Amino acid sequence: MEVVQVLHMNKGNGDTSYAKNSTVQKKIISFGKIIIEEALLELSSNYDIDSMGIADLGCSTGPNTLSVISEIMDIVRATSGHLRLPVPEFRLFFNDLYSNDFNYLFTLLPAFYKMLKEEKGIGLASSQCFISGVPGSFYGRLFPSNSLHFVYSFSSLHWLSQVPVGLESYAVKHLNKGKVYISKSSPQSVVNAYSSQFQADFSKFIKSRSQELVPGGRMVLSFLGRKSIDPTTEDGCYQWELLAEALMSLVKEGLIEEEKVASFNAPYYAPCAEELKVEILKEGSFIIDRLEAFEVDWDGGAVADTHTEQGKMMVGERVAKTIRAVVESMLESHFRMGQETMDVLFIKFAEIVGNHLSKTRTKYINFVISLVRKG
Amino acid sequence: MEVVQVLHMNKGNGDTSYAKNSTVQKKIISFGKIIIEEALLELSSNYDIDSMGIADLGCSTGPNTLSVISEIMDIVRATSGHLRLPVPEFRLFFNDLYSNDFNYLFTLLPAFYKMLKEEKGIGLASSQCFISGVPGSFYGRLFPSNSLHFVYSFSSLHWLSQVPVGLESYAVKHLNKGKVYISKSSPQSVVNAYSSQFQADFSKFIKSRSQELVPGGRMVLSFLGRKSIDPTTEDGCYQWELLAEALMSLVKEGLIEEEKVASFNAPYYAPCAEELKVEILKEGSFIIDRLEAFEVDWDGGAVADTHTEQGKMMVGERVAKTIRAVVESMLESHFRMGQETMDVLFIKFAEIVGNHLSKTRTKYINFVISLVRKG
Repeated sequence: MEVVQVLHMNKGNGDTSYAKNSTVQKKIISFGKIIIEEALLELSSNYDIDSMGIADLGCSTGPNTLSVISEIMDIVRATSGHLRLPVPEFRLFFNDLYSNDFNYLFTLLPAFYKMLKEEKGIGLASSQCFISGVPGSFYGRLFPSNSLHFVYSFSSLHWLSQVPVGLESYAVKHLNKGKVYISKSSPQSVVNAYSSQFQADFSKFIKSRSQELVPGGRMVLSFLGRKSIDPTTEDGCYQWELLAEALMSLVKEGLIEEEKVASFNAPYYAPCAEELKVEILKEGSFIIDRLEAFEVDWDGGAVADTHTEQGKMMVGERVAKTIRAVVESMLESHFRMGQETMDVLFIKFAEIVGNHLSKTRTKYINFVISLVRKG
Repeated sequence: MEVVQVLHMNKGNGDTSYAKNSTVQKKIISFGKIIIEEALLELSSNYDIDSMGIADLGCSTGPNTLSVISEIMDIVRATSGHLRLPVPEFRLFFNDLYSNDFNYLFTLLPAFYKMLKEEKGIGLASSQCFISGVPGSFYGRLFPSNSLHFVYSFSSLHWLSQVPVGLESYAVKHLNKGKVYISKSSPQSVVNAYSSQFQADFSKFIKSRSQELVPGGRMVLSFLGRKSIDPTTEDGCYQWELLAEALMSLVKEGLIEEEKVASFNAPYYAPCAEELKVEILKEGSFIIDRLEAFEVDWDGGAVADTHTEQGKMMVGERVAKTIRAVVESMLESHFRMGQETMDVLFIKFAEIVGNHLSKTRTKYINFVISLVRKG
């Protein structure tokens, strides 16, 4: 499985689409907003920028994508007003992998440009806005040198560039049978493969951005991780533990092959703060301005009573939908399962999640990191 | 009908797709290549460019899009080698309307980047290549000021930004009954509406590009037009005359309403050389380096004997497919006809075209214009 070509959020805006099932990501965005505001304030106060290059890395598709950029433009406009500076020209870049549904995102742009013009007066005279889509992996160069002032990435950096070397589906020996990510029962070699892949990827990410950002440029990154140094800690991997459980129950029912589960490992990694710091400091171009960890409910914080059967079901379903919108393309490509089997899988998964959350409110840990390009 | 949101070439790569039915455009591209080569040679010889901004306006989707840019990069590389200069960094921009199938184009990029690296050594060290998609209408600003060095546009500028004012489908009076473009039988008001719309659009195009191109920057435009000053001349409009005939035969069969044909006017215009010169000189930022007209066969020059029934059918079908890939989205949106009726229409159209070409080999007139930004 080539992550670069296979991973994408569910397309369009139907019932299982990412656009309709991204409330967790929305929640995470609102946590990150204060930190973005702070970063932009620093940027605009210290540098006189005529034309501001802003990139959303791993933009996905749907209303979230445009609402974040819209708020960023509001902050820049407000700051410019406060400092009695003209509002800069905006060069906005939406990046995601080649298979992302850019078509859907682009169909939202005519209404977006209209709103910019009518509500914010952008598009007239000096304050123009130029939007483009930049397909490709952010684990490599995407933009010309010194062309960006602000980079942000939400809910994307926990995806690796590939299944860790040695754990790919065609590997001779399947080291992580019955599991799809690091688990308490995984051998040390699996844990090591995952953390090495993360180090390689994250350092490439930091290095590429250090070349693309102007000195003084800012970057705010938000993605899932874990609190403890122990990579098998529940907040870092339990959603995968339960997905593996759902997959194994389909194996029992004869709907998928055990072999297929054994050869599947998610191209995902939830790092801890120490791992992040090490790579950033090693690369050396960035100052860490902030590194914060937040807890986020699996269902985005919707309050439902998981002590009733109905409540459990509701929460389970909501979490299952959120995760399905994100992982379906990957599962489809590996398991070659039809729509029906996919439905069975996520009904099972919803049930397992509901039961689990009625006992333990496991949460995601989300990092927000604010970095400044030295220079 | 909003052209900006409705017009797009047929998507994907199926039997009726643009990607599979663009041999005429390919032919036109090969005519334009010599002029592009000349323009790039002038550009590279006179300016020392570290990072070259190149835009394809109206890029559409499919192999043509990437093969043209690939040849442009070859020319720049060769010229750099000849002048003993380093190959510049390439910033490539693919522009088309919001509804263009960018997704399909983007899925072709991993293979394209791989080819660049392996065959041309681009992607290493100094010579990088950054590709982005820029959705929006080229009858307005698309890029920051002074950000481009070379702009080209193939087979797009004969499309207007909208159906001429006064001829829209909701217009109170239908002035062009039984026709879908300027025809010998059209009243003067229809001809005027078309030429005014063209003037307004083309002048906006020239003005926008004059701001985006650096002084000395170059632009090569290739699109359909007509030889004579008379806008009802056959080489400028006869394909629409025959499409109207096919539509009217569907009216007779009760498959579509006469009213619908009366209210349809193609957002298209085939200008003559004088009209082009007037707008370019009026705007004033460009020097006309070349303005050439070529004849192009309706079927892209495939040699078939139209004196046999089979030959007529073959040629008719080929022409019908080429035109269908381009106009289907528009017809669909206006006539709301199903796939079946669309098939009937183009079978009829193929027959009419075959018969016509067996009597008169009407050709398209294609302009290639090479412009230099003053400064």
